[in-house]
Amino acid sequence: MRVVVPLSVSGPKSRLADVLSPAERRAFALVMCRDVLAAARDAGLDPELLATAPVDLDAPTTVDDRPLSEAVNAVLADATDAPDATDATDGTGTDGDDENGDGNGNENGDDGTGAHEPVCVLMADLALATPDAVARLVDAPGEVVVAPGRGGGTNALVVRHPDFRVDYHGVSYRDHREAAAALDASVTVVDSMRLATDVDEPADLVEVLLHGPGDAPGWLRERGVALSVGDGRVSVTRESPPGG
Amino acid sequence: MRVVVPLSVSGPKSRLADVLSPAERRAFALVMCRDVLAAARDAGLDPELLATAPVDLDAPTTVDDRPLSEAVNAVLADATDAPDATDATDGTGTDGDDENGDGNGNENGDDGTGAHEPVCVLMADLALATPDAVARLVDAPGEVVVAPGRGGGTNALVVRHPDFRVDYHGVSYRDHREAAAALDASVTVVDSMRLATDVDEPADLVEVLLHGPGDAPGWLRERGVALSVGDGRVSVTRESPPGG
Repeated sequence: MRVVVPLSVSGPKSRLADVLSPAERRAFALVMCRDVLAAARDAGLDPELLATAPVDLDAPTTVDDRPLSEAVNAVLADATDAPDATDATDGTGTDGDDENGDGNGNENGDDGTGAHEPVCVLMADLALATPDAVARLVDAPGEVVVAPGRGGGTNALVVRHPDFRVDYHGVSYRDHREAAAALDASVTVVDSMRLATDVDEPADLVEVLLHGPGDAPGWLRERGVALSVGDGRVSVTRESPPGG
Repeated sequence: MRVVVPLSVSGPKSRLADVLSPAERRAFALVMCRDVLAAARDAGLDPELLATAPVDLDAPTTVDDRPLSEAVNAVLADATDAPDATDATDGTGTDGDDENGDGNGNENGDDGTGAHEPVCVLMADLALATPDAVARLVDAPGEVVVAPGRGGGTNALVVRHPDFRVDYHGVSYRDHREAAAALDASVTVVDSMRLATDVDEPADLVEVLLHGPGDAPGWLRERGVALSVGDGRVSVTRESPPGG
């Protein structure tokens, strides 16, 4: 299975401006991305980056400066066109199971006329992702596997259908389900708080501090970002305002 | 296993005031509670209500007007004191497994000196709860099983340790983990978006509309509450302002 982590390199995480400076937001986006890559690797996968610009992270990287949906769809089209798609790299998956038992050597469950290497798309800001959560995603059956994000987003996908394409605008969770239904593709929804939590807003940093399994929580704490409890709700505070 | 659903009857869901009138908020709290009870029943459990006042819902009900933590702790103390705690109602659980194989007929894994009927505490506003999600919770191993809520809360618990008590104030997820550690109780964290989503704010209604498996989404739609997509973020709107 091909595992792609899309990363927006320029001006990321603007909604964290009250807590982190622009330079810190860029650095934090990379810290979170490293945590996501580590979770995928610890789930037995070989993640690669799909970055909007060259970036200094230790993973095979494709640079594509198009909008997210276009860049991901190029990967999906590429996986469909791959001449060796049916016997491709999905042997790196966590379950070691290359076949669905249908005897045609085609894991996507279609009619066998279109070869398609399964593709997993995992957002780079899933700072709560653990190897277990990633394994639940990639091991789930279905031609389209979706892990919804809060607010109707699509935080992680596994695509095993050659014709499925993404559109991350708007209520993408609903749109992706409709797109799968239009293709008669089977859909599995993965119920994971860890995969549902993309980190965009200060409130999401509460989740990172409490549940992040990687380096992101420590990175925040080193900069004085901490939990704050007031009027029954938990938020974050920072000892000093964002630096440069 | 005893399954308790705490419900606050008076003035619930005040943070939904921009979308629902006081009478509607009371009604919506009951709709959500019914959905939670149904999910628990469909998981093979016999849920009971722990309500702050008498309420017209079809479930065995204990009325306790004390604050949430005190009322739940009274249930936990009761489960510990129960003379028949070791062979109590946990045969109603989804796995049909009354024993942990330790041969002492005591399912909580302690040293056998304290009998304790396992107790599951499931908040009444988990409108996304499905039978599968509830089953994952009650089937998870551990003397304390926690499903964290967003913002550091504790949305669902299974308690199999006789001395564990709750405190829902503040960052209760962290506090409950610390309390379990102080008792040397084993802890399992359940990674579920459905159980992590308690419905308090208008943004949570997005989740109900998209993912709610019961009557709550339809109830909202009948009142004109719908998804709204603006500036990339999804929220809810209502056709007309809240009525009486």
